Amino acid sequence: MQLERNAFIGCDSDYENSHIVIFGAPFDSTTSYRPGTRFGSRAIRSESYGIETYSPYQDKDLTDYSVYDAGDLELCIGSSELALKQIEDTANEILSDNKIPLMLGGEHLVTLGAVKSVYRKYNDLYIIQFDAHADLRNDYLGVKNSHACVMRRCYELVGEKHIYQFGIRSGEREEFTFAQKHTIMNRFNLDRIDDCVKALKGKNVYLTIDLDVLDPSIFPGTGTPEAGGVSFTELLNAVMKLKELNIVGLDMNELSPPYDASGVSTAVACKLLREILLMML
Amino acid sequence: MQLERNAFIGCDSDYENSHIVIFGAPFDSTTSYRPGTRFGSRAIRSESYGIETYSPYQDKDLTDYSVYDAGDLELCIGSSELALKQIEDTANEILSDNKIPLMLGGEHLVTLGAVKSVYRKYNDLYIIQFDAHADLRNDYLGVKNSHACVMRRCYELVGEKHIYQFGIRSGEREEFTFAQKHTIMNRFNLDRIDDCVKALKGKNVYLTIDLDVLDPSIFPGTGTPEAGGVSFTELLNAVMKLKELNIVGLDMNELSPPYDASGVSTAVACKLLREILLMML
Amino acid sequence: MQLERNAFIGCDSDYENSHIVIFGAPFDSTTSYRPGTRFGSRAIRSESYGIETYSPYQDKDLTDYSVYDAGDLELCIGSSELALKQIEDTANEILSDNKIPLMLGGEHLVTLGAVKSVYRKYNDLYIIQFDAHADLRNDYLGVKNSHACVMRRCYELVGEKHIYQFGIRSGEREEFTFAQKHTIMNRFNLDRIDDCVKALKGKNVYLTIDLDVLDPSIFPGTGTPEAGGVSFTELLNAVMKLKELNIVGLDMNELSPPYDASGVSTAVACKLLREILLMML
Amino acid sequence: MQLERNAFIGCDSDYENSHIVIFGAPFDSTTSYRPGTRFGSRAIRSESYGIETYSPYQDKDLTDYSVYDAGDLELCIGSSELALKQIEDTANEILSDNKIPLMLGGEHLVTLGAVKSVYRKYNDLYIIQFDAHADLRNDYLGVKNSHACVMRRCYELVGEKHIYQFGIRSGEREEFTFAQKHTIMNRFNLDRIDDCVKALKGKNVYLTIDLDVLDPSIFPGTGTPEAGGVSFTELLNAVMKLKELNIVGLDMNELSPPYDASGVSTAVACKLLREILLMML
Amino acid sequence: MQLERNAFIGCDSDYENSHIVIFGAPFDSTTSYRPGTRFGSRAIRSESYGIETYSPYQDKDLTDYSVYDAGDLELCIGSSELALKQIEDTANEILSDNKIPLMLGGEHLVTLGAVKSVYRKYNDLYIIQFDAHADLRNDYLGVKNSHACVMRRCYELVGEKHIYQFGIRSGEREEFTFAQKHTIMNRFNLDRIDDCVKALKGKNVYLTIDLDVLDPSIFPGTGTPEAGGVSFTELLNAVMKLKELNIVGLDMNELSPPYDASGVSTAVACKLLREILLMML
Amino acid sequence: MQLERNAFIGCDSDYENSHIVIFGAPFDSTTSYRPGTRFGSRAIRSESYGIETYSPYQDKDLTDYSVYDAGDLELCIGSSELALKQIEDTANEILSDNKIPLMLGGEHLVTLGAVKSVYRKYNDLYIIQFDAHADLRNDYLGVKNSHACVMRRCYELVGEKHIYQFGIRSGEREEFTFAQKHTIMNRFNLDRIDDCVKALKGKNVYLTIDLDVLDPSIFPGTGTPEAGGVSFTELLNAVMKLKELNIVGLDMNELSPPYDASGVSTAVACKLLREILLMML
Repeated sequence: MQLERNAFIGCDSDYENSHIVIFGAPFDSTTSYRPGTRFGSRAIRSESYGIETYSPYQDKDLTDYSVYDAGDLELCIGSSELALKQIEDTANEILSDNKIPLMLGGEHLVTLGAVKSVYRKYNDLYIIQFDAHADLRNDYLGVKNSHACVMRRCYELVGEKHIYQFGIRSGEREEFTFAQKHTIMNRFNLDRIDDCVKALKGKNVYLTIDLDVLDPSIFPGTGTPEAGGVSFTELLNAVMKLKELNIVGLDMNELSPPYDASGVSTAVACKLLREILLMML
Repeated sequence: MQLERNAFIGCDSDYENSHIVIFGAPFDSTTSYRPGTRFGSRAIRSESYGIETYSPYQDKDLTDYSVYDAGDLELCIGSSELALKQIEDTANEILSDNKIPLMLGGEHLVTLGAVKSVYRKYNDLYIIQFDAHADLRNDYLGVKNSHACVMRRCYELVGEKHIYQFGIRSGEREEFTFAQKHTIMNRFNLDRIDDCVKALKGKNVYLTIDLDVLDPSIFPGTGTPEAGGVSFTELLNAVMKLKELNIVGLDMNELSPPYDASGVSTAVACKLLREILLMML
Repeated sequence: MQLERNAFIGCDSDYENSHIVIFGAPFDSTTSYRPGTRFGSRAIRSESYGIETYSPYQDKDLTDYSVYDAGDLELCIGSSELALKQIEDTANEILSDNKIPLMLGGEHLVTLGAVKSVYRKYNDLYIIQFDAHADLRNDYLGVKNSHACVMRRCYELVGEKHIYQFGIRSGEREEFTFAQKHTIMNRFNLDRIDDCVKALKGKNVYLTIDLDVLDPSIFPGTGTPEAGGVSFTELLNAVMKLKELNIVGLDMNELSPPYDASGVSTAVACKLLREILLMML
Repeated sequence: MQLERNAFIGCDSDYENSHIVIFGAPFDSTTSYRPGTRFGSRAIRSESYGIETYSPYQDKDLTDYSVYDAGDLELCIGSSELALKQIEDTANEILSDNKIPLMLGGEHLVTLGAVKSVYRKYNDLYIIQFDAHADLRNDYLGVKNSHACVMRRCYELVGEKHIYQFGIRSGEREEFTFAQKHTIMNRFNLDRIDDCVKALKGKNVYLTIDLDVLDPSIFPGTGTPEAGGVSFTELLNAVMKLKELNIVGLDMNELSPPYDASGVSTAVACKLLREILLMML
Repeated sequence: MQLERNAFIGCDSDYENSHIVIFGAPFDSTTSYRPGTRFGSRAIRSESYGIETYSPYQDKDLTDYSVYDAGDLELCIGSSELALKQIEDTANEILSDNKIPLMLGGEHLVTLGAVKSVYRKYNDLYIIQFDAHADLRNDYLGVKNSHACVMRRCYELVGEKHIYQFGIRSGEREEFTFAQKHTIMNRFNLDRIDDCVKALKGKNVYLTIDLDVLDPSIFPGTGTPEAGGVSFTELLNAVMKLKELNIVGLDMNELSPPYDASGVSTAVACKLLREILLMML
Repeated sequence: MQLERNAFIGCDSDYENSHIVIFGAPFDSTTSYRPGTRFGSRAIRSESYGIETYSPYQDKDLTDYSVYDAGDLELCIGSSELALKQIEDTANEILSDNKIPLMLGGEHLVTLGAVKSVYRKYNDLYIIQFDAHADLRNDYLGVKNSHACVMRRCYELVGEKHIYQFGIRSGEREEFTFAQKHTIMNRFNLDRIDDCVKALKGKNVYLTIDLDVLDPSIFPGTGTPEAGGVSFTELLNAVMKLKELNIVGLDMNELSPPYDASGVSTAVACKLLREILLMML
């Protein structure tokens, strides 16, 4: 007698038969301002039953495919190093079974664990980042493994001009200067997504979506909301274009349920995750 | 000594002199996800004192017209059949006095009670529906009188191609297939509203507005928020165009105050109701 | 790869080896005032990771025993009859395997489904009810299967003076009059719990805890909070005394997470459930 | 067709036949800390439908008596003088019809308007005050008509040792010194309520209940919560003893709905109001 | 040992060296609907640490300039006259030191105190107002010093056609009629901002921003949210154009933290204030 | 021109003249469940203006003494080691000036930094801990510097039977076993506080108050609320008895404002801090 499984809606297939494997990384220890993203993956899973499995945008239905949702890691809040190691190990296991890891944060730092794993397998890796913040600091008050530095750490792995940044509208002056030299940054909006898709066709791509790229009007439930973001439709359209790329790993992060009183942000994350899954399948 | 009347702002005329009669249907027993719309009509009424009676959009003032707000029905939570019967009876009474019933939900199922009543009087009835959800299921977990089936039930009354659906962006595949054959559906937006107005000129029309047709950014306070909706201004403009039609009954539903922490959704509903009233008068 | 199981903390044993089986009944369609208890069982399960498995009150640890948490039923919101039937069937299955069903509500009406099942197996059944409300109405606005009538329906099953009611402090005059004749009611507090335990020793007992028996100061998160209730320690002490009884089925209900902004009510429910489980084991 | 009247539950009798007349004074312009009590009377009225009309404490039912609820005054937020005048006029009208005014605040300052009116009719007037705060300041930042000074203003009307204060646990040193000379203050608790009742038997008494006399655990929804207050049961018992007195006017104030997320404070106010009404009837 | 100063981020220079001086006016006594703006300036200050000092929009950094944040006035809640006097005195002091006062509200009425002071120094003063509401009433329920009348009072100071109003979408009919004759009103949007800048070049300008000019989707946290407002980007672009004007005093008001559950409105206010400061510097 | 200082009410004296120095340690990186205590000290400071400086319990007034509030440390979220070092350094500085450090958390781990500093100065140090949780784990998921281990770390410093624990009602079995051997634990309540005071007279004592020792009914705003706690009055009375001891350092922690919707928990913390200060002075 098992009355239900705790999985994202429509993602309760067997591990063996699934091409994509979802797992949660409930970690937010380095969040410098308002914490709470540790509850993000859990909220997405449980609130997913408020949406349908069918997408009228893509005319596809999750129930026609096989996806496995493995649940949440039990991460050690209080040690970034231990947490990143656990994430990396989990991604390694999924990748070694020739599946695609789809991680749900947590704060943006968790991306580093997954990227390390994916980069080990695919050594010419490109990253597409949707985000309000550059996340390119060298350190944050002396700490290197911080959400504010995560793309800088990724850059140190994947190298020059291998990171495409979209929607960036916040950071220190130094981060913007750094981006001009070392990444390909599209400030404020997603206008040059077509160029990016064209450039990366045939390459191995890791996709990281910091949900605060969305305007706070539609996504208030995050630690550091930044006005002037993109609309849901703009993000959805951009994500749809990535269907032509070879995405080998991905994550979606920074939903903070304690700051989502109406539940709209969680509903947005659920709908976006459904569309991303259907785009990948 | 009566210090105040509990009516929507500017709608405290006598029943006898009023062409439009407002009543509330505080019912949400079939809401499958997040309940709370039973408090919708009450909230609209009490928060209406935060807006003005004058509309700069239409240069009209509610105080120049006569509208009667009868208050809320006491509906039996726990029995859809009893509740729908009470709604139907109330609408019957209003219609038999040659007035127009304007019902405030409650969940969308309440529309069925009002449509039954209006259809008895006007047997070639057309329905215009603004909604995020198709609401065209045959049944929901075995139940036929469910918010998720309400337009299917209405279709069974008014017949083929008599329902115009706008803003629909969520449903099962079967609902969209059904719509292609049996209703006139405008997905995602309100673009073809002009065609609709042209087609229905001179016909008897029932207007049902599920407020979740609005984007959750401006209307978070509803049970199943669906990103990618229309803006307030888009909805307002569409509503204004209906002035050319012969609307014989109408409702506005699905405001859920428990999910409206900031009060913005209720304020939006109040403002929209003022504009609808002024458009009708 | 399964990273976690969605069970109440320490209750992830196999069904076969477990003497007690937990299941959730997420139903609140007849709630006449503020709905939301449909989310109660889910909240208890996910928030249980905020407490320990060890009880210093009883010096026992959940990890030393076997309990199986089957998850939540998918109940048809909108039809009390269908929902009660599903609950009854589930309890039947557990009882036929010689296990004890422990149901998490949902509203109090769900008790009726479980009591029907337990009564079929044990035909001289006594019920102990902790509650703020008598729940002894004959009907509620014409509906018989209502939370406000649940103990009246149970009375019709188990018979005269077979229900012990504690903490009751709200109801219609008729309910109190009815209780004087047909049940054994302890108003306002739990003072006569010792008499009850003495009287029921050796009998088959069903225990139903409506959490609103607690004072709203410690348990605000419920649909109809009633001031003047018992303290957590008083309820805990009373529950501990039931250890001498032969409890053959039980439930805990009426936690409404939408009205539990601080999370304290859910934490209280979790702690109480731990103590109840340890008392039973 | 009028579907409902907006009155406190069970208080929808005619004005003519009612001995007690309820009215609301939605004013909080002088609240120095967290405003919001202007919504108190409205919340009490609409949430009253969550309680019963019958009291098991007194074995009485509101439906057996006649009480008229006149609704809320429309007070000028922004001018204490105008607002107090309106309150006084309303109380005058009720008193001249030989009825008892029962005012719902609003902030505590509104008491001054009602006391002025009652004092005009009954010139040897005693006041019983339940409150966490002494409210005996001479002025507050230069303003004399302030909630923090309201009992000082009342003292200037009714004179030496005519005010009995209970539950007081906050104020400036000067207020406590003043009280020693000019009022009869019972600090921290309600212990000497019997002495008070004995002393005031046969006198004309005005009763003012600042709900923050209750401990914030059971009454969080107020502007300046003060820990260490009395329990609901203690307050209820004290109120019940006042039945032997000749109460000629009364009020209950300082519920602030914006700080009552769970709704418990409003429910407490409703239950207390029911008990007060039944005690008076 | 002083561990921190309580100033808006990057505004902790000395008074002497600063060209702009920020101060808070925590007053909302005349707010007719939902109070709470008294906590606005405090929230902006403390939440400012969630944004950066650098603006990628203007490529400027607050740390490269000198601004002094003096903190909040201690205003007498309950007396508009006293409060306006204190505000005027403070602005006088700043102006007499040849600095620019930047006041943070508080409700919109506080603008009157600052405008009085600025007008004394610059007697041919123009005002630019961004607002959802006209604020042109002659009085509000008899009170002249009300937020609903503030621009009428300012008009009486600065004279005919000296007030440019943008984004106005709410008011009584009389206010719109008044505006046609006496102010220059741009309804609904900011479209004619270029004309305004052209017309006012070389003049002394006072800028007042009522944040409810923004659409409630991005700025829910205000007392009277009005749908159909401008987007953050539209407001930002308009503000940027004012850089060509000679702004001699300014304010930003009507943030109401109690209605900002997600914190997004406060974050928007912080970001806008940073951009305004950088535009001025 | 400085309009206000950001200090706890009545604690704005000079550092030099003050015997007690308050500072905040806004850190919660190891919080394993619900984070947010990083905002605790800030909330206490800003909400302190809702209470009076005078205590009727002790008949003392803060304005008659000199206390300096230094504000909050800027701690590195994400590194416990760095944060503890900063706290220790700050306490060292205060102690070397012969003042008493009073630290406001933050999570309970911050106590370790202060105890290290105090222990360096006073090497026969005793600790009095009020807490719901034993905090005696050896490690938490491999991490030693965790809130769940803080008293174990302190024990390793101060030695056998040097820690008096009160109110403890949660922990693993091992923690209770450990306590029996190595600390002096008073479970569930504060009953043996007199024995403790007697035993420690003349000794150097560090006092640490985890506010979750209070019952969640009066203190809901904390990360892991534990029902069955002590009342405000019980804690106040116990604190008052410590006046006979030689307290050389102290802290109060675990207020989590995001879980304090009503603000009552913060108000309780403010009032308790006032009483602690007055007890020390």
